[in-house]
Amino acid sequence: MTHVLVPATPQRTLTDAWRACVGTGRTREVLHADYRDSLALVQREITFGATRAHGILHDDMGLVRRYEHEGVAGTRYSFSYVDLVIDTWLEAGIAPFLELGFMPRDLASGEQTIFWWQGNVTPPRDAREWADLVAALLRHLVARYGVEQVRTWPVEVWNEPNLPDFWSGSEADYHDLYEVTAHAVKEVDAEIAVGGPAVSPGADDWLPRFADVVERRDLPCDFVSKHAYTSGPAQHVPFGTYQTLRPASHLLEQFATPSTLLAGTALAGLPVHITEFSSSYRPDNPIHDTAYQAAYLAPVLAAGGDHVASFSYWTLCDVFEEVGIPTAPFHGGFGLLGHRQVRKPVFHLYAFAAALGADVLARGGDHLVTRHPDGRIAALLWQPLDPTRVAEAGHTVRLDLSVAAPQVHVSERHVDAERGNARTAWQAMGSPLAPSARATEDLHAASVPAYRGRAVRAEGGRVVVDVELGRHGIALVEVAPTDPQPAPWLDEGRLLGGPGTKG
Amino acid sequence: MTHVLVPATPQRTLTDAWRACVGTGRTREVLHADYRDSLALVQREITFGATRAHGILHDDMGLVRRYEHEGVAGTRYSFSYVDLVIDTWLEAGIAPFLELGFMPRDLASGEQTIFWWQGNVTPPRDAREWADLVAALLRHLVARYGVEQVRTWPVEVWNEPNLPDFWSGSEADYHDLYEVTAHAVKEVDAEIAVGGPAVSPGADDWLPRFADVVERRDLPCDFVSKHAYTSGPAQHVPFGTYQTLRPASHLLEQFATPSTLLAGTALAGLPVHITEFSSSYRPDNPIHDTAYQAAYLAPVLAAGGDHVASFSYWTLCDVFEEVGIPTAPFHGGFGLLGHRQVRKPVFHLYAFAAALGADVLARGGDHLVTRHPDGRIAALLWQPLDPTRVAEAGHTVRLDLSVAAPQVHVSERHVDAERGNARTAWQAMGSPLAPSARATEDLHAASVPAYRGRAVRAEGGRVVVDVELGRHGIALVEVAPTDPQPAPWLDEGRLLGGPGTKG
Amino acid sequence: MTHVLVPATPQRTLTDAWRACVGTGRTREVLHADYRDSLALVQREITFGATRAHGILHDDMGLVRRYEHEGVAGTRYSFSYVDLVIDTWLEAGIAPFLELGFMPRDLASGEQTIFWWQGNVTPPRDAREWADLVAALLRHLVARYGVEQVRTWPVEVWNEPNLPDFWSGSEADYHDLYEVTAHAVKEVDAEIAVGGPAVSPGADDWLPRFADVVERRDLPCDFVSKHAYTSGPAQHVPFGTYQTLRPASHLLEQFATPSTLLAGTALAGLPVHITEFSSSYRPDNPIHDTAYQAAYLAPVLAAGGDHVASFSYWTLCDVFEEVGIPTAPFHGGFGLLGHRQVRKPVFHLYAFAAALGADVLARGGDHLVTRHPDGRIAALLWQPLDPTRVAEAGHTVRLDLSVAAPQVHVSERHVDAERGNARTAWQAMGSPLAPSARATEDLHAASVPAYRGRAVRAEGGRVVVDVELGRHGIALVEVAPTDPQPAPWLDEGRLLGGPGTKG
Amino acid sequence: MTHVLVPATPQRTLTDAWRACVGTGRTREVLHADYRDSLALVQREITFGATRAHGILHDDMGLVRRYEHEGVAGTRYSFSYVDLVIDTWLEAGIAPFLELGFMPRDLASGEQTIFWWQGNVTPPRDAREWADLVAALLRHLVARYGVEQVRTWPVEVWNEPNLPDFWSGSEADYHDLYEVTAHAVKEVDAEIAVGGPAVSPGADDWLPRFADVVERRDLPCDFVSKHAYTSGPAQHVPFGTYQTLRPASHLLEQFATPSTLLAGTALAGLPVHITEFSSSYRPDNPIHDTAYQAAYLAPVLAAGGDHVASFSYWTLCDVFEEVGIPTAPFHGGFGLLGHRQVRKPVFHLYAFAAALGADVLARGGDHLVTRHPDGRIAALLWQPLDPTRVAEAGHTVRLDLSVAAPQVHVSERHVDAERGNARTAWQAMGSPLAPSARATEDLHAASVPAYRGRAVRAEGGRVVVDVELGRHGIALVEVAPTDPQPAPWLDEGRLLGGPGTKG
Repeated sequence: MTHVLVPATPQRTLTDAWRACVGTGRTREVLHADYRDSLALVQREITFGATRAHGILHDDMGLVRRYEHEGVAGTRYSFSYVDLVIDTWLEAGIAPFLELGFMPRDLASGEQTIFWWQGNVTPPRDAREWADLVAALLRHLVARYGVEQVRTWPVEVWNEPNLPDFWSGSEADYHDLYEVTAHAVKEVDAEIAVGGPAVSPGADDWLPRFADVVERRDLPCDFVSKHAYTSGPAQHVPFGTYQTLRPASHLLEQFATPSTLLAGTALAGLPVHITEFSSSYRPDNPIHDTAYQAAYLAPVLAAGGDHVASFSYWTLCDVFEEVGIPTAPFHGGFGLLGHRQVRKPVFHLYAFAAALGADVLARGGDHLVTRHPDGRIAALLWQPLDPTRVAEAGHTVRLDLSVAAPQVHVSERHVDAERGNARTAWQAMGSPLAPSARATEDLHAASVPAYRGRAVRAEGGRVVVDVELGRHGIALVEVAPTDPQPAPWLDEGRLLGGPGTKG
Repeated sequence: MTHVLVPATPQRTLTDAWRACVGTGRTREVLHADYRDSLALVQREITFGATRAHGILHDDMGLVRRYEHEGVAGTRYSFSYVDLVIDTWLEAGIAPFLELGFMPRDLASGEQTIFWWQGNVTPPRDAREWADLVAALLRHLVARYGVEQVRTWPVEVWNEPNLPDFWSGSEADYHDLYEVTAHAVKEVDAEIAVGGPAVSPGADDWLPRFADVVERRDLPCDFVSKHAYTSGPAQHVPFGTYQTLRPASHLLEQFATPSTLLAGTALAGLPVHITEFSSSYRPDNPIHDTAYQAAYLAPVLAAGGDHVASFSYWTLCDVFEEVGIPTAPFHGGFGLLGHRQVRKPVFHLYAFAAALGADVLARGGDHLVTRHPDGRIAALLWQPLDPTRVAEAGHTVRLDLSVAAPQVHVSERHVDAERGNARTAWQAMGSPLAPSARATEDLHAASVPAYRGRAVRAEGGRVVVDVELGRHGIALVEVAPTDPQPAPWLDEGRLLGGPGTKG
Repeated sequence: MTHVLVPATPQRTLTDAWRACVGTGRTREVLHADYRDSLALVQREITFGATRAHGILHDDMGLVRRYEHEGVAGTRYSFSYVDLVIDTWLEAGIAPFLELGFMPRDLASGEQTIFWWQGNVTPPRDAREWADLVAALLRHLVARYGVEQVRTWPVEVWNEPNLPDFWSGSEADYHDLYEVTAHAVKEVDAEIAVGGPAVSPGADDWLPRFADVVERRDLPCDFVSKHAYTSGPAQHVPFGTYQTLRPASHLLEQFATPSTLLAGTALAGLPVHITEFSSSYRPDNPIHDTAYQAAYLAPVLAAGGDHVASFSYWTLCDVFEEVGIPTAPFHGGFGLLGHRQVRKPVFHLYAFAAALGADVLARGGDHLVTRHPDGRIAALLWQPLDPTRVAEAGHTVRLDLSVAAPQVHVSERHVDAERGNARTAWQAMGSPLAPSARATEDLHAASVPAYRGRAVRAEGGRVVVDVELGRHGIALVEVAPTDPQPAPWLDEGRLLGGPGTKG
Repeated sequence: MTHVLVPATPQRTLTDAWRACVGTGRTREVLHADYRDSLALVQREITFGATRAHGILHDDMGLVRRYEHEGVAGTRYSFSYVDLVIDTWLEAGIAPFLELGFMPRDLASGEQTIFWWQGNVTPPRDAREWADLVAALLRHLVARYGVEQVRTWPVEVWNEPNLPDFWSGSEADYHDLYEVTAHAVKEVDAEIAVGGPAVSPGADDWLPRFADVVERRDLPCDFVSKHAYTSGPAQHVPFGTYQTLRPASHLLEQFATPSTLLAGTALAGLPVHITEFSSSYRPDNPIHDTAYQAAYLAPVLAAGGDHVASFSYWTLCDVFEEVGIPTAPFHGGFGLLGHRQVRKPVFHLYAFAAALGADVLARGGDHLVTRHPDGRIAALLWQPLDPTRVAEAGHTVRLDLSVAAPQVHVSERHVDAERGNARTAWQAMGSPLAPSARATEDLHAASVPAYRGRAVRAEGGRVVVDVELGRHGIALVEVAPTDPQPAPWLDEGRLLGGPGTKG
């Protein structure tokens, strides 16, 4: 049991870095009703500031449209679906974090694609065509949404260009792409933010070279981006993948490297955006669906803001088709939510964080204790995890708090290997690929965090609250001062009308 | 522990008598947004067929409007609010069960009123005026809603005329009121159903005399109605009341008397409607808010349909002002739901019943076991209660079921003195009269039934499921046949990527 | 001007054939939020009974999933998306009309595809694989939705197999496909309805041969289906097509042929379903977006039920991608609704029909006059159109009606080349490909039918109502008996407080 | 015809004074579903900043609750309904403008009441009891909603104390009430704004005396409030009232007096709030329901912000019972909306204003021309009215505008004696007291402003737009620059596939 002696005055502020951004899979998937429903739920219970998606330029968005008329070829840019996507986001109160990619077939220099949905990952065959498209897109957005608003939407150039699967060109080709793109963006409006290089984990060496190119060519650059994951090589099985994990602290280390590596360069001091992070980078690793994921990432959520301006959980929901259409409600998808808005444990990690106050009273290996303006304490607790083994038991945290009131109301919401855990419930059903309607209702019922409320008396200006986390557990614990003045005529013992009964 | 050996074939059918009707307080309260929200929730999760409210003719509905023009007095009937009320009901998929009362001031013979909202309970000063009003109302309803629909809305004459507080006239006066009313209704349309005498408990002697009047005067009568409660004298405290209770079986006995008493009369064989029932008849008895109420009434809900065509829980929500405006979220109100749609344990009793199948496999002192067309078993279980004392512990039921499948999935939803119990959570908060917004969210969280899912293997074609009810507990237990075919490549032990870990 | 002397008694009944079914484009498009919003609107204002879509078996639905484990290949059927689609329909109160197609790649005998979304149109390489898939799908539907419900969902085998673009096999190959499919369906449940041959216009010769095969091979067949269009050859322009039209009466002739051709065959007397119909079969013909389309199809909607059990407008909305993603709000799409639920004139044709009564008092070349149970007259009027030229002026219809009341209230709702016409409004904007948010609001405003209400006095038990239709106009005219009893104290001339003013 | 030569640069800014506040009738009416629906609509299409209602302390809100326990009397303050009301407002995005009144019966010094709902208008019998109640209410609001928020909610002391019907005390009694109230408020929090004297029209002489009392007694005062109406004496008829009107300019004169009269006093420079205004102060004057009301008030809405910080239209909807329950859909109620959200012409006046830009290019006797940041022109136009007579014809306005584009799109939305006018439609129905469901749909259809869109070419950098207002008409005219680039292949003449047809 950890004993947390909570100070009475704030030690720091909890920034919104943890919810500044969240990932969406493919841009076109935003058109799905199931995605929109999930987004609405996520915004109601968590409220992210922005979202980033692959493939806004992919052919399934229909932007670049060749035609021929009277023997002359032409191109029409079509924004029918782009507008539907961005309207969907804005109506949900979330802004775009624009990732430019992949390559429209008609602009591509090659045939190489990635994913089931076949995003073309080759450089443009003609840089001017690409620049035209980028400028046309940005100009359209400015015209439709107003320049003031578009200036708050960062523009990131491509995705993980360091990986051959995502970029068939060389690093130099990426630098050229960045150059032409950044200029095209700035020509539309000089205050629209542009950045890169959006590299995958293990490619930090790209950062100084990127800084060097930016400096030498005098390129616009408003932020630096990269991704962070901790999983090992994929061990494939049908419809799934297993992977080892490194400690969660490794994520924070990955967050921290840009500011170190870029010190002294032209990019020093720029905002750093972790535009994707999670444990595993695979959309079919069951870890994503477990309470383990929630407890494992809790310390990252608690401290990530020390290092970066945003770290964007990849992704908000399981409407996601990189390796094909999911074949089961729990398939190891990236989402905070499964299909049909089934809440996963990691969703609750975020929803619990959304209930915290901005004043941080204490932070440690298993706790983040905050206070609201009205004096309520709100603490996020978690079981510390060893990434090489699942835990066999839970974990207890003792919160020792200063209070001015004679009594407090303590509410706890628990999620762990058993509680608030739809995947565990689904396994009890025999892991059905297509659960019945009633079984789906059961999954929703099983996904609700366990609630417990109780009164605790203060002693000498302090209250001691012991919270027993379940295996792989996280908890939101709220402590509200109360000063109950029970009506003297109330007697629970008279519930059944007799003088001597006790309720 | 009870051992329930459940037969494989249905013993009887569960009729919809338990949800054929539910009470609303005062007709005008239907205009409240909080009422409408509650009605929507109740219809979504329970789905009652009809609802009955006091005071459709009360002055706060504004029907009878005197005026004078150029020295001549006139009356305008105004249906602005009547139409809003009935539209609200119909849009929610619930039909009116029309209770005609109380007396508009301009038609009344006296000044006596009842309730905080001052319903006039005196006979009409002029029977023709009353008949005109009744006919005008019914004609209006027929014109607006169509005669086919109005014929499905029973018309009940007055409320509890046997009590001097509700009817200042004599029994003979009631008979006269019934006569003029029934004729006025039938003149509008002969197929609109009319009935009475809507007596309170303890007035069964009115029934044969009512039958006698109907027969002697050859009056129309399509159903017989009465009320049923089991509480003793009110022991008042400020803002509340305590009362003793008789056994729940007494409710069933009250349901059963009309068919006995009316055998051989002109009313023999008519549908009997219990147009109000509950434990206590007081809108400020805390019993209504407890799990005790749910477990206490469970056997009534299970068997009431043996005796009557409907038994109408009084009432669907706490938007109810007979003794004034409630001063606390839990104030002993009649509602299945409190203000702001906080679910009470008795709401869950009804919601659990709504999840049952129509085929009854077994029924007993603590269980009602049913089957759905798809083979799923759904059982309502409850702790049998002694009305003179609260229970000190829970109760266990063993369901012993015949199944064709190798395994079943068992889901349990529990509500008891601790679980699914918003009132208990509220007491832990110090029983605040005006909970904060966050505390109200906690009440909603606390009101969710505890969910548990598990797999149970069949042995020799049977499964044995032990269900542990909490104190004053009820449970919905569902047993679904499953035949899991786990994919051979799945190994929960590989969750963290290692060969030997176990999840 | 036409003078319609309307009889006082019904001549016939208006069946629901006109709204028994409506087309959806591609099954996967049902997952789109814009589709779901459109469906909700269509069901609220029109209420179709069923909907039929292409491609439930197409690879983008993800049903057939090959895998390999330890060297052994297997197939998993996945219903994740099928269930989402059908749940979406059922929640909107619309049933599936199941069209089985196209061919999953892993089951196909060839590579030929159709449409931008590449539906494979080749016969199965192995009939047993196909039969397995069909049976698996139906079994799954029965398990999830209950056999009673699935029995109300007709199963149609393939789409337009007479066209080489839609079916790379021969007519005999289709007969074989029908045979194996029909048996596979009936093995799941003998009461599920199956039918075909879903031929395109001009292929009526398939019908007797289909009947012959059914009889000779003793195949199950519960209904006959075909399509009906009246457009000529496509005259392509970029992003669009122009076509000539035959008279609308030709559609009714196409509806009528099956009963004639199949008389005396094994299929005589079976229900005939026109599973697609419209003017043009092209998804990029601007005719669909015009008032012309509405007036042109009005007589078909009025009389189609004389010939067939259903005729299904192709399609309910412009979420439709056969020739790619639409590049403009008005692009000649099939939908009753454009993107973002902009109502087209033909939507109003259907919405007007939904306001008709079942008793038909009169039907003619420009009118369908009906009566509701409450006595209200509801008439659909339209301008008769010559398909070789647009009209230069409107058309007037005089309704001469028998009424019992001294006065009537006449309400008119008009849609024509100017009124209730979003496309015309869009053209006034300069036909913007991507209208601004405010412009889109203008399109919605422009799409509202023009409303006019007036009082008309009866003379000698009749009222004469002249209705002036605009160019290419349709109108819904409702005539309600009234008996106004104006309060004698009301004087519009006193509105400004003076005795002599007039309002 | 007026010719408005619109300058290219803004002349002034349109402040939000016109929508800073709107009236609600009685506080308790906020609990009604019909009110909540109306509020939601009003906020969606207009968006007021705050709302002010009578009777937050009236007994039907249940705040003051006496009880006796063991022979000792006590008072419980109950906020159940206050919280429901304020939550309803905040959820709709509207803040309270708190009017303190009327007197709870248990605190009152007399029996005098006002309105059908019997608000007690007598001074407190004991100033300390009143101060306790005020402080308790404010303390509760601060605890529940946070002090930062409550500081934005002005507190106004009583309503129209100059009228004996509203205040049975003397002017000196009001000054005493103000004193004790203001101190009670400030003791809770010094930054909560308090003000008065909320006088009715014709009582401006109260203002200097109020200023004098504030100065002499050194009382807190943060704003000055009064009401403004222009109607003459009530000419009663059954269920209605006729009244003469003074010119609309008289309203602006009433707005202007406080700053004049208070110059040089202690209250000089304080914000002035017109906490009620309209033409008539009667809730049963048909003027409120007419287009006349909209055109009459248009110049007030356009210029009122020159004089005051807010002017609050009395009221947002017809859920309003001062003279009893309305007996007809149009009954001369104060609301922008009738029951069931039927939009009145004056609603559209406000909705049109909500579509204006902040930059005012021109303002005159029949126009207010504004510009949006994106360059769109939005103009509110109205027919100038003589209050002694209704107009016999409409009015035309020529807008002569500078534009940079070659063409503009002009959209017009019209409301007048015929168009967008539900009351006129209702009169055509025979003015039914209880319209059928279909008739109510007709009223909604009739209430939609007439939309017209057209293209106008620029000549020499200007466009001339003639707008023909109907009788008693208002219009919203929007002019958007366009630069249409019609696709050369489009030819409306080919709609029917022939080369020579014209569409």
